[in-house]
Amino acid sequence: MSEQIVNNISKIPLFESCSDEFLDHLAHQSGLKSYSKGKVLFLSNDSADTFYFIVSGWIKLFKETIDGSQAVIDILTTGHILGDTSLFQSDLYPYSAEIVETAEVITMPLSILKSEIESNPKLALAMLSSMARYRRQQDQEIENRTLKNAPQRIGCFLLRLAPANQTGKTVIQLPYDKTLVASRLGMQPETFSRALSKLKTAVAMDIKGATITIQNYEDLIEYACSACSSGFPCQDLCA
Amino acid sequence: MSEQIVNNISKIPLFESCSDEFLDHLAHQSGLKSYSKGKVLFLSNDSADTFYFIVSGWIKLFKETIDGSQAVIDILTTGHILGDTSLFQSDLYPYSAEIVETAEVITMPLSILKSEIESNPKLALAMLSSMARYRRQQDQEIENRTLKNAPQRIGCFLLRLAPANQTGKTVIQLPYDKTLVASRLGMQPETFSRALSKLKTAVAMDIKGATITIQNYEDLIEYACSACSSGFPCQDLCA
Repeated sequence: MSEQIVNNISKIPLFESCSDEFLDHLAHQSGLKSYSKGKVLFLSNDSADTFYFIVSGWIKLFKETIDGSQAVIDILTTGHILGDTSLFQSDLYPYSAEIVETAEVITMPLSILKSEIESNPKLALAMLSSMARYRRQQDQEIENRTLKNAPQRIGCFLLRLAPANQTGKTVIQLPYDKTLVASRLGMQPETFSRALSKLKTAVAMDIKGATITIQNYEDLIEYACSACSSGFPCQDLCA
Repeated sequence: MSEQIVNNISKIPLFESCSDEFLDHLAHQSGLKSYSKGKVLFLSNDSADTFYFIVSGWIKLFKETIDGSQAVIDILTTGHILGDTSLFQSDLYPYSAEIVETAEVITMPLSILKSEIESNPKLALAMLSSMARYRRQQDQEIENRTLKNAPQRIGCFLLRLAPANQTGKTVIQLPYDKTLVASRLGMQPETFSRALSKLKTAVAMDIKGATITIQNYEDLIEYACSACSSGFPCQDLCA
Protein backbone atom coordinates (compact mmCIF):
# COMPACT_ATOMS: atom_id res chain seq x y z
CA MET A 1 0.00 0.00 0.00
CA SER A 2 1.54 3.29 -1.06
CA GLU A 3 1.83 6.18 1.32
CA GLN A 4 0.26 8.35 -1.35
CA ILE A 5 -3.04 6.48 -1.04
CA VAL A 6 -3.15 6.94 2.73
CA ASN A 7 -2.26 10.61 2.38
CA ASN A 8 -4.92 11.25 -0.20
CA ILE A 9 -7.69 9.31 1.53
CA SER A 10 -7.09 10.97 4.89
CA LYS A 11 -7.53 14.37 3.25
CA ILE A 12 -10.93 13.63 1.64
CA PRO A 13 -13.36 15.97 3.47
CA LEU A 14 -16.14 13.36 3.25
CA PHE A 15 -14.14 11.09 5.57
CA GLU A 16 -13.39 13.74 8.21
CA SER A 17 -15.55 11.98 10.81
CA CYS A 18 -14.10 8.53 10.14
CA SER A 19 -11.75 6.69 12.50
CA ASP A 20 -8.10 6.01 11.65
CA GLU A 21 -9.01 2.34 11.76
CA PHE A 22 -11.58 2.79 8.99
CA LEU A 23 -9.22 4.92 6.90
CA ASP A 24 -6.45 2.31 7.21
CA HIS A 25 -8.83 -0.47 6.28
CA LEU A 26 -10.11 1.50 3.29
CA ALA A 27 -6.58 2.43 2.14
CA HIS A 28 -5.53 -1.25 2.23
CA GLN A 29 -8.31 -2.13 -0.18
CA SER A 30 -7.74 0.87 -2.47
CA GLY A 31 -5.58 1.44 -5.50
CA LEU A 32 -3.89 4.44 -7.12
CA LYS A 33 -4.17 4.41 -10.89
CA SER A 34 -3.16 6.61 -13.80
CA TYR A 35 -5.31 6.70 -16.90
CA SER A 36 -4.86 8.37 -20.26
CA LYS A 37 -7.41 10.38 -22.21
CA GLY A 38 -10.10 8.17 -23.69
CA LYS A 39 -10.11 5.47 -20.99
CA VAL A 40 -13.66 4.59 -19.97
CA LEU A 41 -13.87 3.99 -16.21
CA PHE A 42 -17.39 2.55 -16.34
CA LEU A 43 -20.55 2.66 -18.42
CA SER A 44 -24.02 3.67 -17.34
CA ASN A 45 -25.87 0.67 -15.83
CA ASP A 46 -22.67 -1.29 -15.28
CA SER A 47 -22.73 -3.13 -11.99
CA ALA A 48 -21.05 -0.80 -9.46
CA ASP A 49 -18.43 -2.09 -7.04
CA THR A 50 -15.94 0.79 -7.00
CA PHE A 51 -16.00 4.51 -6.30
CA TYR A 52 -13.32 6.98 -7.32
CA PHE A 53 -11.51 9.96 -5.85
CA ILE A 54 -9.89 12.22 -8.46
CA VAL A 55 -6.30 13.13 -7.49
CA SER A 56 -5.66 15.00 -10.75
CA GLY A 57 -6.98 15.26 -14.30
CA TRP A 58 -10.48 15.60 -15.71
CA ILE A 59 -13.26 13.02 -15.97
CA LYS A 60 -16.40 13.36 -18.06
CA LEU A 61 -19.73 12.01 -16.80
CA PHE A 62 -22.13 11.33 -19.64
CA LYS A 63 -25.18 9.44 -20.83
CA GLU A 64 -25.60 8.01 -24.28
CA THR A 65 -28.65 7.19 -26.38
CA ILE A 66 -28.92 4.01 -28.44
CA ASP A 67 -28.03 5.95 -31.59
CA GLY A 68 -24.81 7.21 -29.95
CA SER A 69 -25.76 10.80 -29.13
CA GLN A 70 -24.10 11.89 -25.95
CA ALA A 71 -25.23 14.23 -23.16
CA VAL A 72 -22.42 15.44 -20.92
CA ILE A 73 -23.77 15.64 -17.37
CA ASP A 74 -20.63 17.08 -15.81
CA ILE A 75 -16.83 17.19 -16.08
CA LEU A 76 -15.08 16.74 -12.74
CA THR A 77 -11.54 17.31 -11.51
CA THR A 78 -9.25 17.12 -8.44
CA GLY A 79 -11.06 16.58 -5.16
CA HIS A 80 -14.28 15.15 -6.58
CA ILE A 81 -15.66 11.72 -5.84
CA LEU A 82 -17.63 9.74 -8.38
CA GLY A 83 -19.61 6.53 -8.31
CA ASP A 84 -20.51 6.81 -4.62
CA THR A 85 -24.23 7.42 -5.21
CA SER A 86 -24.49 4.05 -6.99
CA LEU A 87 -24.92 2.64 -3.48
CA PHE A 88 -28.42 4.09 -3.49
CA GLN A 89 -29.31 3.25 -7.09
CA SER A 90 -29.67 -0.51 -7.36
CA ASP A 91 -25.86 -0.82 -7.31
CA LEU A 92 -25.62 0.36 -10.91
CA TYR A 93 -23.70 3.38 -12.16
CA PRO A 94 -26.24 6.04 -13.17
CA TYR A 95 -23.93 7.51 -15.86
CA SER A 96 -20.80 6.63 -17.81
CA ALA A 97 -17.36 8.06 -16.93
CA GLU A 98 -14.46 8.68 -19.30
CA ILE A 99 -11.04 10.25 -18.76
CA VAL A 100 -10.77 13.44 -20.83
CA GLU A 101 -7.40 14.71 -19.56
CA THR A 102 -4.79 12.30 -18.11
CA ALA A 103 -6.02 11.49 -14.62
CA GLU A 104 -4.80 9.94 -11.43
CA VAL A 105 -7.56 8.36 -9.39
CA ILE A 106 -7.90 6.38 -6.19
CA THR A 107 -10.19 3.39 -6.63
CA MET A 108 -12.07 2.32 -3.50
CA PRO A 109 -14.52 -0.55 -2.87
CA LEU A 110 -18.14 0.57 -2.46
CA SER A 111 -18.81 -2.30 -0.03
CA ILE A 112 -16.53 -0.72 2.60
CA LEU A 113 -18.19 2.67 2.16
CA LYS A 114 -21.60 1.06 2.50
CA SER A 115 -20.91 -0.63 5.81
CA GLU A 116 -19.25 2.50 7.22
CA ILE A 117 -22.27 4.67 6.27
CA GLU A 118 -24.57 2.23 8.02
CA SER A 119 -22.64 2.45 11.26
CA ASN A 120 -21.33 6.02 11.23
CA PRO A 121 -24.13 8.65 11.25
CA LYS A 122 -21.59 11.46 10.82
CA LEU A 123 -20.43 9.99 7.52
CA ALA A 124 -24.07 9.68 6.42
CA LEU A 125 -24.59 13.35 7.30
CA ALA A 126 -21.43 14.34 5.42
CA MET A 127 -22.72 12.47 2.36
CA LEU A 128 -26.10 14.18 2.66
CA SER A 129 -24.34 17.57 2.74
CA SER A 130 -22.25 16.71 -0.26
CA MET A 131 -25.28 15.50 -2.22
CA ALA A 132 -27.25 18.60 -1.28
CA ARG A 133 -24.38 20.75 -2.54
CA TYR A 134 -24.27 18.82 -5.82
CA ARG A 135 -28.04 19.15 -6.15
CA ARG A 136 -27.70 22.92 -5.80
CA GLN A 137 -25.13 22.88 -8.63
CA GLN A 138 -27.49 20.88 -10.82
CA ASP A 139 -30.35 23.29 -10.05
CA GLN A 140 -27.99 26.07 -11.14
CA GLU A 141 -27.17 24.18 -14.35
CA ILE A 142 -30.89 23.84 -15.16
CA GLU A 143 -31.37 27.54 -14.38
CA ASN A 144 -28.40 28.45 -16.60
CA ARG A 145 -29.85 26.53 -19.52
CA THR A 146 -33.21 28.27 -19.01
CA LEU A 147 -32.24 31.90 -18.41
CA LYS A 148 -28.74 32.49 -19.77
CA ASN A 149 -27.96 32.88 -23.44
CA ALA A 150 -25.03 30.94 -24.91
CA PRO A 151 -22.38 33.72 -24.53
CA GLN A 152 -23.44 34.23 -20.89
CA ARG A 153 -23.11 30.50 -20.24
CA ILE A 154 -19.56 30.55 -21.61
CA GLY A 155 -18.86 33.59 -19.42
CA CYS A 156 -20.19 31.72 -16.38
CA PHE A 157 -17.97 28.73 -17.24
CA LEU A 158 -14.89 31.01 -17.42
CA LEU A 159 -15.68 32.69 -14.09
CA ARG A 160 -15.70 29.29 -12.41
CA LEU A 161 -12.19 28.56 -13.69
CA ALA A 162 -10.63 31.74 -12.33
CA PRO A 163 -8.96 31.81 -8.91
CA ALA A 164 -10.97 33.56 -6.16
CA ASN A 165 -10.85 37.36 -5.67
CA GLN A 166 -9.65 38.31 -9.15
CA THR A 167 -9.83 41.90 -10.30
CA GLY A 168 -8.80 43.68 -13.50
CA LYS A 169 -6.76 41.77 -16.09
CA THR A 170 -7.20 38.03 -15.60
CA VAL A 171 -5.74 35.02 -17.38
CA ILE A 172 -7.81 31.85 -17.55
CA GLN A 173 -6.66 28.49 -18.94
CA LEU A 174 -9.25 26.25 -20.54
CA PRO A 175 -8.78 22.89 -18.80
CA TYR A 176 -9.74 20.77 -21.83
CA ASP A 177 -10.38 21.30 -25.51
CA LYS A 178 -13.07 23.62 -26.84
CA THR A 179 -15.22 20.84 -28.33
CA LEU A 180 -15.49 19.37 -24.86
CA VAL A 181 -16.24 22.77 -23.30
CA ALA A 182 -19.06 23.06 -25.84
CA SER A 183 -20.53 19.68 -24.91
CA ARG A 184 -20.12 20.42 -21.18
CA LEU A 185 -22.28 23.49 -21.82
CA GLY A 186 -24.78 21.50 -23.89
CA MET A 187 -23.91 23.35 -27.12
CA GLN A 188 -23.11 22.21 -30.63
CA PRO A 189 -19.52 23.18 -31.59
CA GLU A 190 -20.77 25.77 -34.12
CA THR A 191 -23.12 27.34 -31.54
CA PHE A 192 -20.17 27.50 -29.15
CA SER A 193 -17.93 29.24 -31.74
CA ARG A 194 -20.58 31.85 -32.53
CA ALA A 195 -21.30 32.42 -28.84
CA LEU A 196 -17.60 32.81 -28.02
CA SER A 197 -17.31 35.49 -30.73
CA LYS A 198 -20.30 37.33 -29.25
CA LEU A 199 -18.81 37.10 -25.77
CA LYS A 200 -15.54 38.54 -27.13
CA THR A 201 -17.46 41.49 -28.56
CA ALA A 202 -19.27 42.12 -25.28
CA VAL A 203 -16.31 41.64 -22.94
CA ALA A 204 -12.81 42.56 -24.11
CA MET A 205 -10.60 39.46 -24.18
CA ASP A 206 -7.77 37.79 -26.11
CA ILE A 207 -8.01 34.13 -26.95
CA LYS A 208 -4.83 32.23 -27.84
CA GLY A 209 -5.38 28.49 -27.95
CA ALA A 210 -6.43 27.47 -24.46
CA THR A 211 -5.36 30.77 -22.88
CA ILE A 212 -7.98 33.46 -22.43
CA THR A 213 -6.97 36.87 -21.16
CA ILE A 214 -9.85 38.94 -19.86
CA GLN A 215 -9.01 42.66 -19.91
CA ASN A 216 -11.28 43.51 -16.98
CA TYR A 217 -12.64 40.71 -14.85
CA GLU A 218 -15.50 42.87 -13.48
CA ASP A 219 -16.87 43.27 -17.03
CA LEU A 220 -17.14 39.49 -17.35
CA ILE A 221 -18.94 39.23 -14.00
CA GLU A 222 -21.40 41.94 -14.99
CA TYR A 223 -22.06 40.30 -18.34
CA ALA A 224 -22.41 36.68 -17.22
CA CYS A 225 -24.09 37.13 -13.84
CA SER A 226 -26.75 39.65 -14.85
CA ALA A 227 -29.09 36.81 -15.88
CA CYS A 228 -28.51 34.69 -12.79
CA SER A 229 -30.33 34.25 -9.48
CA SER A 230 -27.10 33.50 -7.68
CA GLY A 231 -24.99 36.64 -7.94
CA PHE A 232 -21.19 36.55 -7.74
CA PRO A 233 -19.42 34.60 -6.31
CA CYS A 234 -21.77 31.70 -7.04
CA GLN A 235 -23.73 30.35 -4.10
CA ASP A 236 -23.54 26.87 -5.58
CA LEU A 237 -19.77 26.90 -5.19
CA CYS A 238 -20.13 27.48 -1.43
CA ALA A 239 -21.08 24.85 1.11
CA MET B 1 -53.76 17.31 16.30
CA SER B 2 -55.85 15.94 13.46
CA GLU B 3 -55.92 12.25 12.68
CA GLN B 4 -55.24 13.19 9.05
CA ILE B 5 -51.78 14.47 9.96
CA VAL B 6 -50.87 11.25 11.77
CA ASN B 7 -52.23 9.18 8.88
CA ASN B 8 -50.29 11.10 6.28
CA ILE B 9 -47.03 11.26 8.17
CA SER B 10 -47.04 7.55 8.94
CA LYS B 11 -47.36 6.80 5.22
CA ILE B 12 -44.35 8.88 4.11
CA PRO B 13 -41.85 6.30 2.78
CA LEU B 14 -38.93 8.39 4.06
CA PHE B 15 -40.08 7.72 7.64
CA GLU B 16 -40.50 3.96 7.26
CA SER B 17 -37.63 3.23 9.64
CA CYS B 18 -38.78 5.71 12.30
CA SER B 19 -40.30 4.72 15.62
CA ASP B 20 -43.96 5.39 16.51
CA GLU B 21 -42.65 7.64 19.24
CA PHE B 22 -40.82 9.83 16.70
CA LEU B 23 -43.83 9.91 14.36
CA ASP B 24 -46.14 10.94 17.22
CA HIS B 25 -43.74 13.64 18.33
CA LEU B 26 -43.41 14.92 14.74
CA ALA B 27 -47.18 14.85 14.17
CA HIS B 28 -47.76 16.90 17.34
CA GLN B 29 -45.51 19.65 15.99
CA SER B 30 -46.92 19.56 12.47
CA GLY B 31 -49.80 21.33 10.77
CA LEU B 32 -52.12 20.58 7.86
CA LYS B 33 -52.70 23.59 5.64
CA SER B 34 -54.59 24.40 2.47
CA TYR B 35 -53.24 27.00 0.12
CA SER B 36 -54.64 28.58 -3.03
CA LYS B 37 -52.83 29.16 -6.30
CA GLY B 38 -50.33 31.99 -6.04
CA LYS B 39 -49.38 31.52 -2.39
CA VAL B 40 -45.61 31.66 -1.91
CA LEU B 41 -44.47 29.10 0.68
CA PHE B 42 -40.96 30.48 0.91
CA LEU B 43 -38.38 32.38 -1.09
CA SER B 44 -34.89 31.30 -2.06
CA ASN B 45 -32.42 32.18 0.72
CA ASP B 46 -35.17 32.59 3.33
CA SER B 47 -34.16 31.13 6.65
CA ALA B 48 -35.47 27.53 6.68
CA ASP B 49 -37.29 26.14 9.69
CA THR B 50 -40.02 24.07 8.03
CA PHE B 51 -40.24 21.25 5.50
CA TYR B 52 -43.35 20.25 3.60
CA PHE B 53 -45.12 17.07 2.53
CA ILE B 54 -47.53 17.56 -0.39
CA VAL B 55 -50.87 15.82 0.29
CA SER B 56 -52.46 17.16 -2.91
CA GLY B 57 -52.02 19.93 -5.48
CA TRP B 58 -48.98 21.23 -7.35
CA ILE B 59 -46.06 23.32 -6.13
CA LYS B 60 -43.53 25.10 -8.32
CA LEU B 61 -39.87 25.32 -7.29
CA PHE B 62 -38.13 28.22 -8.95
CA LYS B 63 -35.24 30.65 -8.87
CA GLU B 64 -35.44 34.28 -9.82
CA THR B 65 -32.90 36.77 -11.09
CA ILE B 66 -32.74 40.36 -9.88
CA ASP B 67 -34.53 41.53 -13.02
CA GLY B 68 -37.44 39.13 -12.32
CA SER B 69 -36.73 36.38 -14.88
CA GLN B 70 -37.73 33.04 -13.49
CA ALA B 71 -36.27 29.55 -13.98
CA VAL B 72 -38.61 26.74 -13.00
CA ILE B 73 -36.51 23.99 -11.40
CA ASP B 74 -39.36 21.52 -10.90
CA ILE B 75 -43.10 21.26 -10.27
CA LEU B 76 -43.99 18.72 -7.57
CA THR B 77 -47.21 17.01 -6.50
CA THR B 78 -48.70 14.47 -4.06
CA GLY B 79 -46.15 12.42 -2.14
CA HIS B 80 -43.20 14.76 -2.60
CA ILE B 81 -41.29 16.45 0.20
CA LEU B 82 -39.74 19.88 -0.16
CA GLY B 83 -37.44 22.00 1.94
CA ASP B 84 -35.76 19.04 3.64
CA THR B 85 -32.37 19.54 1.98
CA SER B 86 -32.12 23.03 3.51
CA LEU B 87 -30.74 21.20 6.55
CA PHE B 88 -27.54 20.72 4.61
CA GLN B 89 -27.38 24.14 2.98
CA SER B 90 -26.68 26.69 5.71
CA ASP B 91 -30.33 26.42 6.84
CA LEU B 92 -31.49 28.48 3.88
CA TYR B 93 -34.00 27.41 1.23
CA PRO B 94 -32.08 26.84 -2.01
CA TYR B 95 -35.09 27.80 -4.19
CA SER B 96 -38.46 29.51 -3.92
CA ALA B 97 -41.74 27.56 -3.73
CA GLU B 98 -45.16 28.71 -4.93
CA ILE B 99 -48.54 26.95 -5.05
CA VAL B 100 -49.63 26.61 -8.69
CA GLU B 101 -52.75 24.45 -8.16
CA THR B 102 -54.67 24.49 -4.85
CA ALA B 103 -52.59 22.39 -2.49
CA GLU B 104 -52.85 20.70 0.86
CA VAL B 105 -49.54 20.38 2.65
CA ILE B 106 -48.26 19.13 5.96
CA THR B 107 -45.79 21.55 7.53
CA MET B 108 -43.15 19.96 9.74
CA PRO B 109 -40.30 21.49 11.78
CA LEU B 110 -36.85 20.89 10.32
CA SER B 111 -35.32 20.83 13.82
CA ILE B 112 -37.11 17.53 14.62
CA LEU B 113 -35.98 16.00 11.34
CA LYS B 114 -32.43 17.10 12.02
CA SER B 115 -32.15 15.46 15.43
CA GLU B 116 -33.77 12.25 14.16
CA ILE B 117 -31.32 12.02 11.23
CA GLU B 118 -28.41 12.41 13.63
CA SER B 119 -29.57 9.51 15.78
CA ASN B 120 -31.26 7.19 13.25
CA PRO B 121 -28.84 5.89 10.58
CA LYS B 122 -31.72 4.23 8.70
CA LEU B 123 -33.41 7.59 8.21
CA ALA B 124 -30.12 9.05 6.98
CA LEU B 125 -29.83 6.17 4.49
CA ALA B 126 -33.43 6.68 3.35
CA MET B 127 -32.67 10.37 2.75
CA LEU B 128 -29.52 9.46 0.81
CA SER B 129 -31.58 7.13 -1.40
CA SER B 130 -34.19 9.77 -1.98
CA MET B 131 -31.56 12.38 -2.85
CA ALA B 132 -29.80 9.96 -5.20
CA ARG B 133 -33.10 9.32 -6.97
CA TYR B 134 -33.75 13.04 -7.31
CA ARG B 135 -30.23 13.53 -8.62
CA ARG B 136 -30.88 10.93 -11.30
CA GLN B 137 -34.02 12.86 -12.31
CA GLN B 138 -32.02 16.07 -12.55
CA ASP B 139 -29.35 14.32 -14.64
CA GLN B 140 -32.19 13.20 -16.91
CA GLU B 141 -33.50 16.77 -17.11
CA ILE B 142 -30.05 18.03 -18.16
CA GLU B 143 -29.84 15.22 -20.72
CA ASN B 144 -33.32 16.07 -22.03
CA ARG B 145 -32.36 19.69 -22.55
CA THR B 146 -29.20 18.61 -24.38
CA LEU B 147 -30.41 15.82 -26.66
CA LYS B 148 -34.17 16.12 -27.12
CA ASN B 149 -35.82 18.68 -29.35
CA ALA B 150 -38.77 20.68 -28.01
CA PRO B 151 -41.54 18.38 -29.37
CA GLN B 152 -39.76 15.34 -27.91
CA ARG B 153 -39.50 17.08 -24.54
CA ILE B 154 -43.25 17.73 -24.54
CA GLY B 155 -43.78 14.07 -25.49
CA CYS B 156 -41.57 12.97 -22.58
CA PHE B 157 -43.58 15.22 -20.24
CA LEU B 158 -46.86 13.63 -21.41
CA LEU B 159 -45.52 10.09 -20.97
CA ARG B 160 -44.72 10.86 -17.35
CA LEU B 161 -48.33 11.92 -16.72
CA ALA B 162 -49.89 8.72 -18.06
CA PRO B 163 -50.73 5.82 -15.74
CA ALA B 164 -48.37 2.83 -16.01
CA ASN B 165 -48.79 0.11 -18.64
CA GLN B 166 -50.86 2.11 -21.14
CA THR B 167 -51.37 0.83 -24.66
CA GLY B 168 -53.31 2.13 -27.65
CA LYS B 169 -55.64 5.09 -27.20
CA THR B 170 -54.68 7.06 -24.09
CA VAL B 171 -56.16 10.12 -22.42
CA ILE B 172 -53.84 12.43 -20.52
CA GLN B 173 -54.89 15.44 -18.43
CA LEU B 174 -52.49 18.35 -18.20
CA PRO B 175 -52.16 19.01 -14.45
CA TYR B 176 -51.69 22.78 -14.76
CA ASP B 177 -51.97 25.42 -17.45
CA LYS B 178 -49.91 25.33 -20.63
CA THR B 179 -47.87 28.43 -19.82
CA LEU B 180 -46.65 26.64 -16.73
CA VAL B 181 -45.96 23.43 -18.66
CA ALA B 182 -43.85 25.56 -21.01
CA SER B 183 -41.83 27.05 -18.16
CA ARG B 184 -41.46 23.63 -16.49
CA LEU B 185 -39.86 22.51 -19.76
CA GLY B 186 -37.70 25.64 -19.98
CA MET B 187 -39.48 26.94 -23.10
CA GLN B 188 -40.93 30.29 -24.05
CA PRO B 189 -44.75 30.03 -24.54
CA GLU B 190 -44.41 30.59 -28.30
CA THR B 191 -41.73 27.87 -28.59
CA PHE B 192 -44.04 25.57 -26.65
CA SER B 193 -47.00 26.26 -29.00
CA ARG B 194 -44.92 25.60 -32.11
CA ALA B 195 -43.44 22.44 -30.59
CA LEU B 196 -46.86 21.14 -29.56
CA SER B 197 -48.08 21.58 -33.17
CA LYS B 198 -45.06 19.66 -34.43
CA LEU B 199 -45.68 16.89 -31.92
CA LYS B 200 -49.30 16.71 -33.06
CA THR B 201 -48.12 16.24 -36.65
CA ALA B 202 -45.69 13.50 -35.66
CA VAL B 203 -47.96 11.62 -33.25
CA ALA B 204 -51.74 11.57 -33.84
CA MET B 205 -53.52 13.29 -30.94
CA ASP B 206 -56.52 15.49 -30.11
CA ILE B 207 -56.04 18.42 -27.78
CA LYS B 208 -59.12 19.93 -26.08
CA GLY B 209 -58.20 22.36 -23.33
CA ALA B 210 -56.27 20.36 -20.75
CA THR B 211 -57.31 16.98 -22.17
CA ILE B 212 -54.96 15.28 -24.62
CA THR B 213 -56.06 12.08 -26.35
CA ILE B 214 -53.20 10.11 -27.88
CA GLN B 215 -54.44 7.79 -30.62
CA ASN B 216 -51.69 5.24 -30.12
CA TYR B 217 -49.55 5.42 -27.00
CA GLU B 218 -46.74 3.36 -28.55
CA ASP B 219 -46.26 6.05 -31.23
CA LEU B 220 -45.65 8.64 -28.51
CA ILE B 221 -43.11 6.38 -26.79
CA GLU B 222 -41.27 5.78 -30.04
CA TYR B 223 -41.21 9.48 -30.87
CA ALA B 224 -40.21 10.85 -27.47
CA CYS B 225 -37.85 8.12 -26.23
CA SER B 226 -35.80 7.67 -29.39
CA ALA B 227 -33.44 10.48 -28.30
CA CYS B 228 -33.05 9.29 -24.72
CA SER B 229 -30.49 7.17 -22.88
CA SER B 230 -33.11 5.85 -20.53
CA GLY B 231 -35.58 3.90 -22.66
CA PHE B 232 -39.18 3.38 -21.57
CA PRO B 233 -40.34 3.23 -18.83
CA CYS B 234 -37.92 5.83 -17.53
CA GLN B 235 -35.18 4.61 -15.24
CA ASP B 236 -35.28 7.86 -13.33
CA LEU B 237 -38.84 7.11 -12.21
CA CYS B 238 -37.69 3.86 -10.59
CA ALA B 239 -35.82 3.58 -7.30
